[in-house]
Amino acid sequence: MSDETGYAIDDRPLVGTLQKLDVQQVIDATTDRWSNRTLCRVDDVVVRLGVLEGEFHWHKHDDEDEFFLVLDGLMRIELEDRPAVELGPRQAYVVPKGLRHRPVVPSRTAVLMIERAGVVATGD
Amino acid sequence: MSDETGYAIDDRPLVGTLQKLDVQQVIDATTDRWSNRTLCRVDDVVVRLGVLEGEFHWHKHDDEDEFFLVLDGLMRIELEDRPAVELGPRQAYVVPKGLRHRPVVPSRTAVLMIERAGVVATGD
Repeated sequence: MSDETGYAIDDRPLVGTLQKLDVQQVIDATTDRWSNRTLCRVDDVVVRLGVLEGEFHWHKHDDEDEFFLVLDGLMRIELEDRPAVELGPRQAYVVPKGLRHRPVVPSRTAVLMIERAGVVATGD
Repeated sequence: MSDETGYAIDDRPLVGTLQKLDVQQVIDATTDRWSNRTLCRVDDVVVRLGVLEGEFHWHKHDDEDEFFLVLDGLMRIELEDRPAVELGPRQAYVVPKGLRHRPVVPSRTAVLMIERAGVVATGD
């Protein structure tokens, strides 16, 4: 799957249950400028790893909340009709369903994301 | 709520949506030897922070997977009829529903956990 920005989204979980997952190893192995990778599934949600640099497009998810936790770097989440939120390492934010938002990432940043499985990460 | 080990579980989310969450601040402010705190809710799941030291009891969750991601420290997850799993910083594991397990944490360790809301963290 890919969206109009041209980056690929791989929705197959990298590991199943009963498999140890080394998140740092995945970060280190990521060479794409904008990577959004599904790490694993926990019941009805997926845990994703973004390794990001640049600006995404404005979008929203009608039915799903989206959780962001910055691991390394800095992510600004621009929000419709609200002040933007800046997240540094170990800072997190939940974008509630229905709220238009746009991630802006000045330099390479690793972000852990959680959302309900089946969400297309590019929004609508 | 508390269980037989005597530690309290606070299931009220620390922040709601549209509130920035500083996970490091929560870690730094935790003084209990075994703390399991609900950080936020993302649709049907809760994101929890454990700041742990010691051994927990064997337990399982019949209906829910449990995700662990070590932030700092070292956590061993003992598993019934399987080799134990050792998780260092940025290593993660999903304990599938129904599998008996026991976290063992030799020294103070911070762990991010995800599970479906409504799960009693102490198992049965």
